[in-house]
Amino acid sequence: MLSGTQLSDGMRSVFVELLVHGPLSRAEAARRLDLSPSALTKLTKPLLESGFLLRQPVGDRGALGRPSQPLAVDPSRAALIGIKLTEDELFAVRTDLRAETQSELRRPLASHDVDDIVTCIREVVRELNGPGTAAAVVGISLAGTASGGDPVVPTSPFLGWRNVPLGNLVAEATGIPTVVENDVRALTAAQQWFGAGVGRSSFALVTVGAGLGCGLVIGDRLVRGAGRGTGLVGHMAIHDSGPLCEMGHRGCARAYASSAAIRRAVSGILDRPELTFEACLALAAEGQPAARRIFEDAGRALGQVVATVANITGLELVILSGEAVAMYDVCADAFDAALAAHTHWTSTPVDVVIKPFTFNEWARGAAVIALQHRILGSGA
Amino acid sequence: MLSGTQLSDGMRSVFVELLVHGPLSRAEAARRLDLSPSALTKLTKPLLESGFLLRQPVGDRGALGRPSQPLAVDPSRAALIGIKLTEDELFAVRTDLRAETQSELRRPLASHDVDDIVTCIREVVRELNGPGTAAAVVGISLAGTASGGDPVVPTSPFLGWRNVPLGNLVAEATGIPTVVENDVRALTAAQQWFGAGVGRSSFALVTVGAGLGCGLVIGDRLVRGAGRGTGLVGHMAIHDSGPLCEMGHRGCARAYASSAAIRRAVSGILDRPELTFEACLALAAEGQPAARRIFEDAGRALGQVVATVANITGLELVILSGEAVAMYDVCADAFDAALAAHTHWTSTPVDVVIKPFTFNEWARGAAVIALQHRILGSGA
Repeated sequence: MLSGTQLSDGMRSVFVELLVHGPLSRAEAARRLDLSPSALTKLTKPLLESGFLLRQPVGDRGALGRPSQPLAVDPSRAALIGIKLTEDELFAVRTDLRAETQSELRRPLASHDVDDIVTCIREVVRELNGPGTAAAVVGISLAGTASGGDPVVPTSPFLGWRNVPLGNLVAEATGIPTVVENDVRALTAAQQWFGAGVGRSSFALVTVGAGLGCGLVIGDRLVRGAGRGTGLVGHMAIHDSGPLCEMGHRGCARAYASSAAIRRAVSGILDRPELTFEACLALAAEGQPAARRIFEDAGRALGQVVATVANITGLELVILSGEAVAMYDVCADAFDAALAAHTHWTSTPVDVVIKPFTFNEWARGAAVIALQHRILGSGA
Repeated sequence: MLSGTQLSDGMRSVFVELLVHGPLSRAEAARRLDLSPSALTKLTKPLLESGFLLRQPVGDRGALGRPSQPLAVDPSRAALIGIKLTEDELFAVRTDLRAETQSELRRPLASHDVDDIVTCIREVVRELNGPGTAAAVVGISLAGTASGGDPVVPTSPFLGWRNVPLGNLVAEATGIPTVVENDVRALTAAQQWFGAGVGRSSFALVTVGAGLGCGLVIGDRLVRGAGRGTGLVGHMAIHDSGPLCEMGHRGCARAYASSAAIRRAVSGILDRPELTFEACLALAAEGQPAARRIFEDAGRALGQVVATVANITGLELVILSGEAVAMYDVCADAFDAALAAHTHWTSTPVDVVIKPFTFNEWARGAAVIALQHRILGSGA
């Protein structure tokens, strides 16, 4: 597994259950995994011996008055490195096994040349590892059609790449197994194991920022699609007399709700080209009528996107996040109204939780998807 | 299993593989299931002894010149009954294990009273079984939120039911295990095991008729949703200056593409209230300009629905079917254009196959979903 330990399917299930839901008493772990106490003991023994599991020193007293010792994964037993590539920058984190960030850094990308970027990644990995134990796995996430088991990036529009074997190049340069994945799916994996998706069999993560993204977990599995991309909600048709997007679609979701579109619209109508997205949001929050209306239109578009995804897939939960998710504060009513209006009439609006976005979240997602892939294999 | 045989997980996998993909040589079956020849022999032995599997008498000669004997499920080893309930009628089939129809019938529903309908189903089952061996399972499909493992129908808008324990009532009345399922999911199950979905890990079945429906298979599993319904594409917003649907939505998919909406539109513009949907279709096929335009608008709406489903879920294939699917002939160009226009620009339009609809298809779907559920359990 993470450092050469051979895992049976049973050991893998125990490890993942305790990683995601732990600490758990032995009785609770056995119940959740539908195992007898002796089968659980047999499966946990090698994991305890190799240090991946710990007996928590202080536990509640059990029914017979004996101290129970809940089992938990030792998050410090191995480290992960996650890297997010954007058009002009690289964000990286080193985390523990539960994706808690230990250190982080960012680097500008000097070029889109593959060798340059691999060299940059090698140096970043070296710096994050420091003199201590190397991370067990490197995850790299980027926009495009990259997908888990495949070390090749088929297309990356921002970097102008086609069929770049990035996973193999980084693994060779660093000596560490490397997983490459679409960035929104990676972010979704972090929510699945260590975020608002824990305990949910089906949910979507909808992101709003420079573009719109959507990752799906259905039946406890991250949806990877058949090489065609998944969660491509950015250009969903919203209103056929709406604003144009960069691709010439009139009134698509991105034309209403991406941070770039909102900035263009607010700065345009107010004739203030210097306004940033954050400044536009501040104006809307202060009640400037045009800014407010533009954010409300964005909220309506997002509500329709979320309702459409939920109508089709029957999700339990939608997590709304991304760099621009703070916009929700000024458009919640419009969002909720559109969500209700577009939810199929036989159903009720899907639960929505807002997850404030933090700077290193994309890189953390890359670390988690690499961990999932290492533990679960290509079926991750 | 179907007649009390206890199946291990391994036997179940062998049986399903041969049912869906058979006949297969032993070598091919072992390869597909990732089993050693001896493991396969061990798993097939009880299935051969109980008559569920057959050695096909004539096989190709193997590499060593010995005759190979491909393995296949004996489709006559057990029978299935499938029943579709509509607002005013019941359609029923008896099929073999591969869902080939052996006999079929239809009955008007005298009322929506639960006891009356259970009595009607009991008589239909008795008639279809005749004097021979009773079917191993009864599947019942209907519009609404019914779902596989649960014998209770939570809501059925057409029948005006809430929380009716239909599965248990029919099982008691007939003495045969009974499964109740949403009709579109049942139809999708038939495509998954015995139709255009065979060998496809992810696909959708989009139906067009009195309403629009959508069943999803993702990662080889039928998507059941979290009690909220899935594939609810009927009221997807298409054009905000379009016609109204019955629920007051302007320009939703159903307002364009359901057979009722098309009939209303064509008969209205031509001032010929007597026109049936089929007559409207004939007019469009003959080139009547208004009828043609209305069908083209319907095709465009369907193309947008299919593209949106594919963009979100990343499917390999969409199967288009339903009572009104013959409309595709007069609106294929409009459908294809809308599918291309609404497919995300980084992707290519999903493959679409048209499946002509046959009268007993819904009932056959009910038989297959019952079979899946009996074999695979609630995870079907």
